[in-house]
Amino acid sequence: MAKKDDGSRVRDALRVGGALPDPGSAPVGPDKKAKALAGLDSAGERLSALQEALYAEGVGGGRRSVLLVLQGMDTSGKGGTVSHVLGLVNPMGVRYAAFKKPTAAEQRHHYLWRIRKQLPAPGQIGVFDRSHYEDILVPRVSGLLTGAERRRRYAEITAFEAELAEAGTTVVKVFLHISPEEQLKRLKARLVTPEKRWKYNPGDLDARSHWAAYQKAYADIFEKTPQWYAVPADHKWYRNWAVAELLIETLAELKPEFPAPDYDVDAELAKLKGVGVRS
Amino acid sequence: MAKKDDGSRVRDALRVGGALPDPGSAPVGPDKKAKALAGLDSAGERLSALQEALYAEGVGGGRRSVLLVLQGMDTSGKGGTVSHVLGLVNPMGVRYAAFKKPTAAEQRHHYLWRIRKQLPAPGQIGVFDRSHYEDILVPRVSGLLTGAERRRRYAEITAFEAELAEAGTTVVKVFLHISPEEQLKRLKARLVTPEKRWKYNPGDLDARSHWAAYQKAYADIFEKTPQWYAVPADHKWYRNWAVAELLIETLAELKPEFPAPDYDVDAELAKLKGVGVRS
Repeated sequence: MAKKDDGSRVRDALRVGGALPDPGSAPVGPDKKAKALAGLDSAGERLSALQEALYAEGVGGGRRSVLLVLQGMDTSGKGGTVSHVLGLVNPMGVRYAAFKKPTAAEQRHHYLWRIRKQLPAPGQIGVFDRSHYEDILVPRVSGLLTGAERRRRYAEITAFEAELAEAGTTVVKVFLHISPEEQLKRLKARLVTPEKRWKYNPGDLDARSHWAAYQKAYADIFEKTPQWYAVPADHKWYRNWAVAELLIETLAELKPEFPAPDYDVDAELAKLKGVGVRS
Repeated sequence: MAKKDDGSRVRDALRVGGALPDPGSAPVGPDKKAKALAGLDSAGERLSALQEALYAEGVGGGRRSVLLVLQGMDTSGKGGTVSHVLGLVNPMGVRYAAFKKPTAAEQRHHYLWRIRKQLPAPGQIGVFDRSHYEDILVPRVSGLLTGAERRRRYAEITAFEAELAEAGTTVVKVFLHISPEEQLKRLKARLVTPEKRWKYNPGDLDARSHWAAYQKAYADIFEKTPQWYAVPADHKWYRNWAVAELLIETLAELKPEFPAPDYDVDAELAKLKGVGVRS
């Protein structure tokens, strides 16, 4: 019997569809750090090759792009994922945007306003470090979001993501799933290591104190908005491996193609010989 | 006698101040590919560490940034430099912008309009793949720039770059210097390799046919605008090594610093223990 096409093996395993996997687990992935690092190395080559083709397709007039949306509690590894996974590919093809607490100017606009400005161009891989989902999470946990407003935002976001799909952008939404115990360790590490203190924010403790409310708000988001992946993130090596594979599977399915030349190759080769250089 | 501080060894060697170095040479650098690749590896660690500190400084309220401006004839390796040198650092801290032929909409604005929109944020390393210098080069070689307009643009650009310096942005302007013979090889390679054909543009031959005029226009730019570096770029391994070192020397001189915490570390550590997680 032919081997089943496993081009969606990691996506199938991590797609949210009920209870989340244990934050310390490593579904369908390498279960040891050394193996995961080796896997990430080889993923780098595949990811780079796919990204180059997507980029070339964009230069050739293609309109497709990919948008990786990273969500997760503080210290869940959004920044680390960007560094270790997106760091594997050509920066020309990556567009990174972080969404912090909206500024006063941003708050005067619709919450999708600042999001739209950071969408990837054709051929790019966009990365959102937090996203429009913060506009449901934060006000909801703070008790500032009425049920009616929440439903309106779900509808708006679902329409927005459908619009992205229509425009050629494949959205890959990833929840980096850590345990409260792991977060405690990481917050401590940020405080005791002088060179990590800039990553710590006293506000992180407020969010931590509402852990269960955040988990509940996320669960609701997973149910009410288009497809999510949950990546167990207590092990950084698994997290990096898994996000790289999610991107690879997504890009491979898009089958990006180097564009056919819109010029006559032989004629250009002939001309090339004739173009002298006056110097 | 104490060893002279060599924190500007590569900058001193490559700073333009008269005749350019031979495009096939490797001033003050490794003269063999293997050595240069090993050097680039170690440069990656230093560059990453400096960049992380600059980024942290920005998060902490610092306003400094670096802007790498890459100029050079077609195939001189602007894209390759981005991939191999900027690819060494965290994508969170890199802002890449390519400036192609201005669109009709862009042409209705001052030529610096689109440039200003792509400046790096505090803490970032910006990279310009071509830049405002195209707005002197192209019209000049095409004979469309009067002497008066050229002088005005030099003055505007000089003022613009002074403004950047004042705003905390250190500009590193690099001319990737290739020979016409090397360009011929690379253009041919783009035409005969199907997966490289998207990088070829028939317009490249027009620029090639005006090689001497471009070199003259560059020479004038080097004389009339703030400091440039010329990186011999016939050897890709030297080019990558040299640009990495120019960035490292520049960043090292800035001495970016991890910001002091604006919170009480001990108080936060104590609070951290107390913040239970309701789950």
